[in-house]
Amino acid sequence: MTQQRQQLSFGLIGWGYWGPKLARNLESLPQASLEIVADLDPMSLAKVSAERPWIKTTTRVEDVFSSNVDGIVIATPVSTHFDLARKALGHGKHILVEKPLTTSVCEAEELIALAERERRTLMVGHTFEYSPAVTQLRQLIQDGELGNIYCVEIERLNLGLFRTDIDVIWDLAPHDASILLAILDRSPSKVQAHAHAHLHPAIYDVAHLDLEYESGTTAHIHVSWLHPAKVRRVTVIGDSRMAIYDDTNPAEMLKVFNKGADVGVDPVFSYRHGAITIPHIEWMEPLRLECEDFAHAIRTGEEPRANGRAGLEVVRILTAAQESLLVRQIA
Amino acid sequence: MTQQRQQLSFGLIGWGYWGPKLARNLESLPQASLEIVADLDPMSLAKVSAERPWIKTTTRVEDVFSSNVDGIVIATPVSTHFDLARKALGHGKHILVEKPLTTSVCEAEELIALAERERRTLMVGHTFEYSPAVTQLRQLIQDGELGNIYCVEIERLNLGLFRTDIDVIWDLAPHDASILLAILDRSPSKVQAHAHAHLHPAIYDVAHLDLEYESGTTAHIHVSWLHPAKVRRVTVIGDSRMAIYDDTNPAEMLKVFNKGADVGVDPVFSYRHGAITIPHIEWMEPLRLECEDFAHAIRTGEEPRANGRAGLEVVRILTAAQESLLVRQIA
Amino acid sequence: MTQQRQQLSFGLIGWGYWGPKLARNLESLPQASLEIVADLDPMSLAKVSAERPWIKTTTRVEDVFSSNVDGIVIATPVSTHFDLARKALGHGKHILVEKPLTTSVCEAEELIALAERERRTLMVGHTFEYSPAVTQLRQLIQDGELGNIYCVEIERLNLGLFRTDIDVIWDLAPHDASILLAILDRSPSKVQAHAHAHLHPAIYDVAHLDLEYESGTTAHIHVSWLHPAKVRRVTVIGDSRMAIYDDTNPAEMLKVFNKGADVGVDPVFSYRHGAITIPHIEWMEPLRLECEDFAHAIRTGEEPRANGRAGLEVVRILTAAQESLLVRQIA
Amino acid sequence: MTQQRQQLSFGLIGWGYWGPKLARNLESLPQASLEIVADLDPMSLAKVSAERPWIKTTTRVEDVFSSNVDGIVIATPVSTHFDLARKALGHGKHILVEKPLTTSVCEAEELIALAERERRTLMVGHTFEYSPAVTQLRQLIQDGELGNIYCVEIERLNLGLFRTDIDVIWDLAPHDASILLAILDRSPSKVQAHAHAHLHPAIYDVAHLDLEYESGTTAHIHVSWLHPAKVRRVTVIGDSRMAIYDDTNPAEMLKVFNKGADVGVDPVFSYRHGAITIPHIEWMEPLRLECEDFAHAIRTGEEPRANGRAGLEVVRILTAAQESLLVRQIA
Repeated sequence: MTQQRQQLSFGLIGWGYWGPKLARNLESLPQASLEIVADLDPMSLAKVSAERPWIKTTTRVEDVFSSNVDGIVIATPVSTHFDLARKALGHGKHILVEKPLTTSVCEAEELIALAERERRTLMVGHTFEYSPAVTQLRQLIQDGELGNIYCVEIERLNLGLFRTDIDVIWDLAPHDASILLAILDRSPSKVQAHAHAHLHPAIYDVAHLDLEYESGTTAHIHVSWLHPAKVRRVTVIGDSRMAIYDDTNPAEMLKVFNKGADVGVDPVFSYRHGAITIPHIEWMEPLRLECEDFAHAIRTGEEPRANGRAGLEVVRILTAAQESLLVRQIA
Repeated sequence: MTQQRQQLSFGLIGWGYWGPKLARNLESLPQASLEIVADLDPMSLAKVSAERPWIKTTTRVEDVFSSNVDGIVIATPVSTHFDLARKALGHGKHILVEKPLTTSVCEAEELIALAERERRTLMVGHTFEYSPAVTQLRQLIQDGELGNIYCVEIERLNLGLFRTDIDVIWDLAPHDASILLAILDRSPSKVQAHAHAHLHPAIYDVAHLDLEYESGTTAHIHVSWLHPAKVRRVTVIGDSRMAIYDDTNPAEMLKVFNKGADVGVDPVFSYRHGAITIPHIEWMEPLRLECEDFAHAIRTGEEPRANGRAGLEVVRILTAAQESLLVRQIA
Repeated sequence: MTQQRQQLSFGLIGWGYWGPKLARNLESLPQASLEIVADLDPMSLAKVSAERPWIKTTTRVEDVFSSNVDGIVIATPVSTHFDLARKALGHGKHILVEKPLTTSVCEAEELIALAERERRTLMVGHTFEYSPAVTQLRQLIQDGELGNIYCVEIERLNLGLFRTDIDVIWDLAPHDASILLAILDRSPSKVQAHAHAHLHPAIYDVAHLDLEYESGTTAHIHVSWLHPAKVRRVTVIGDSRMAIYDDTNPAEMLKVFNKGADVGVDPVFSYRHGAITIPHIEWMEPLRLECEDFAHAIRTGEEPRANGRAGLEVVRILTAAQESLLVRQIA
Repeated sequence: MTQQRQQLSFGLIGWGYWGPKLARNLESLPQASLEIVADLDPMSLAKVSAERPWIKTTTRVEDVFSSNVDGIVIATPVSTHFDLARKALGHGKHILVEKPLTTSVCEAEELIALAERERRTLMVGHTFEYSPAVTQLRQLIQDGELGNIYCVEIERLNLGLFRTDIDVIWDLAPHDASILLAILDRSPSKVQAHAHAHLHPAIYDVAHLDLEYESGTTAHIHVSWLHPAKVRRVTVIGDSRMAIYDDTNPAEMLKVFNKGADVGVDPVFSYRHGAITIPHIEWMEPLRLECEDFAHAIRTGEEPRANGRAGLEVVRILTAAQESLLVRQIA
């Protein structure tokens, strides 16, 4: 591309788990620079300064809002997302907010409305949506390669890290809800959950979410902080093919099974057993692709893939799950 | 053993999927013989006669009841279990009934009472209880090797075989409910299910069961007829160790993980990551061990491992799951 | 097929490891019966009589030769193959000899000549040639799907069973030599071996064979009685595709990799990374197919797949390996 | 450690495959800095300057020698190692030379003598020696946990990268020869190789090395540039236990099998089948540990683990393999 790209500058709020990863990727974008980092902890900022003496650091988020950066990345605890995002938009900044977007549906809706009014990009950090394997799985489904989708089973399990600010549903299920949204391209009509708190009495560490769609498709999400092995698996059952996306197996990340059951008369069901295909997937870091999409959205005004509405949908699923748990507790 | 063992004779009702397997194992028991086989289908009986001309065959179950065999194995569709079992006990026969024992709790209770009155062995074909891996897992838990059990996750998935007489819960979950009972040695206080019917509108083909125990332990059973890979996995999460029993991996059927999370003050949780141990398990066919236990129970009058109460507990779990689905459908 | 098939009768010499397996398969062939079994050990024969009272047993091989059976299966120690096979052919019998056919090239040649003269079937028990996965791999290669074959790497490793009559090369490598012959359809021009005796000073338990073909193709066979895991793997490297046949993985027995290196100018080599395909292979027991081929050959006079010349080629490779070890020992 | 550590400065020659990785690790060492980088290609140096403007770059190696750095890392093509290393030592520098140390035994010996005379550290980049899994395997063997070692089988296979300056033996086998040296702590008495050139007529791309030790231990190294899967596996067979180190499986990198064959009388061999243990290995990047060892050796004057003699031993094995190939070619 010989075309001149607009130079972009970024600010980053929050130097916790995601902050350094986002910084590394923002810095590596062409024609882009990270200019200011804010965090409440001076120790964290000292680390930033030691490695990147050219970046301005501050403990006051207002310094980021009032700076002349084009975009602000918000990587703080969930409870602060809404307030920070609203202020950033209010200052005319494009924003990328870590997942989940907000803690409630109405907050998410307010941010969407505000971003539209301000004509600014509102994007959510649904990293897995940018995984090349998810992109390929989405394509397979949209091209009808798997046929009509009966159900999707997702597991995201590992030992830890336990959190005390949010439960396992709000911690892990945003990944799965956003993957579901990306591949099925529709919202569930019903969400019900079972969750259990084994380690800390007030915080769920194991949960199962059951989702139903108008189309008859169903989905199930199993998330856990208490599991001996790392599992990140999505199984899609279609009426013509089935697929397994296993994020922990780089050499065979996506497997497509040409098998299934066909409804007949006598016998009532017949089974097809065909070949398994493992497409070659050109690996690219999802977070890098996410940052590229943020830059592209700012430059062009186009919607990013993980836009505000995607963020809202994910929050809708999480709060529906939470409500179903409350209902059961009361009953 | 130089001691004289009592010679045992058996009758078998039902020559479908399990019949031939049971016959092979009954025949191979020392001091035992299979003498009569009943089935409604003369074609099936013709096959029996062709391979085993010395066995008597009949389409009338009464012939089995009135024969002089010591024990009768009932391997017919579930709906016929109760009636056949009651009659067999009424004729003074010891019985081994395929899983699940009955279609209702009160039928199971009636059979238990009848067997006690008649002083006859009532046993259920909970084959997996006899798997050497389940026996070893049960021992680990009872010896406290895993510590206090937080939760158990069970998956039993495969493509087919679809059945039209019962749904996936009644078809596959008896295995899992009996494994849970065998390893935890207690009954759940609450059972709730989500189930979906994708292929045939009236028959569930995918189901999730959520179980809670008084002790705080929870369990989850996922059964499916619609899955591209064969999965038979039990994960047990204890507060000192974790274990995975994978029935499809003969070389590493049981893995014990010396890892976990400990509750602390600051940090709130700390993680232990120790060695994985894969005990050597001397393989023996579970069905063979089950048939041995049946013969042993008949000879000694001792309770078999998979006795009537185990059969009742499994039926209790299945019917509770079924009821929770009805409640949700109505609501 | 409504056509009348000729009724065949078989005799079996040797009731060791392979005897019972061969008997089970011979018995299950349509229009065929096993009539007589010979073994030097009366205890073995007693077992045969207990399970199959209708079969004649004898400790004298002459009884088998002089019986009226059509075909004789020879499953005795290798050193006795030649003598027994010669006598059986001399009595006008069709024969199936366990692998390896003989202990020397000239013996194998003499048996081939004799079988031709007597117009009788001479077949060798190269069981793996009949594996559906080997058949499919052979087809892929012959159809040019893998392109020109650079090399083949074979591993056949496990703990035991140690033998004291033959070394690991004569015990295990016949499988691999026959697979190579089946898939490449040509004979090596050079065979060299390295072998080591760790457990018993006079018997090799680990060996590597290096084979070269006129075409430039090379092959390597690694056999071992001293390995912690069971490995049975054949890797074929072609200039357009690569394939791995893993006999221990029933669900993914054959994997075809659409990848390779292409010779260029600058850069000198470029790499292709495409999809992996796992064809569905309809499983059938190789030994059953082998017995069917024997029966078919007897009935039709057609050459069986694992004919005398295949047996000779395998013996040629084994003796060449043995000689290369002697040469090195002397030098 | 409150003790004052000597500040160290480094120079690096060669910005190819290993250069950037080495630079990253040298920079992250405490009390250390990378000051100058030399490469013949100005484009490579431009990349260095872009990312690390504070580092001096040069196309003349003399600038590195005459700088005031304490240690020089030589990461250039093998053929230049000897000359650069000699000059660096001549300038009083401590050196870390990429593997293999030199192209001939006498060159390696000369460097060792020179380093001793100059009292400078001579270290070789045998990265795998620093892998925590290799360290643990070495410990197991030295503690006698595996018993007497019968044999070691090593595989290092992948597709590419083909090189035109050296063959697959000189490219990949240094890793394996150095691992063997690290775990067995002795040198082979005999080395023989088979190698084949499939892609480029003059360059071996597949090779098998057979090694014998005075103790009776044997080893086999299989290296290949032509393989569909990435394999990096070391199997150690001891008379009491067996172990597999699989570098591609982070979760189960080292497996210890409590199994084996025992020599008896009747039966001649008996088999033990015990548990498998997978020790928890705290992961640390081997290259980081290597760089730490280099810094430690410079500061203390102690020998690094991968010292000159280790480098010499590896070159000895590679040249012996090469000679055995020449002998066979001539014969």
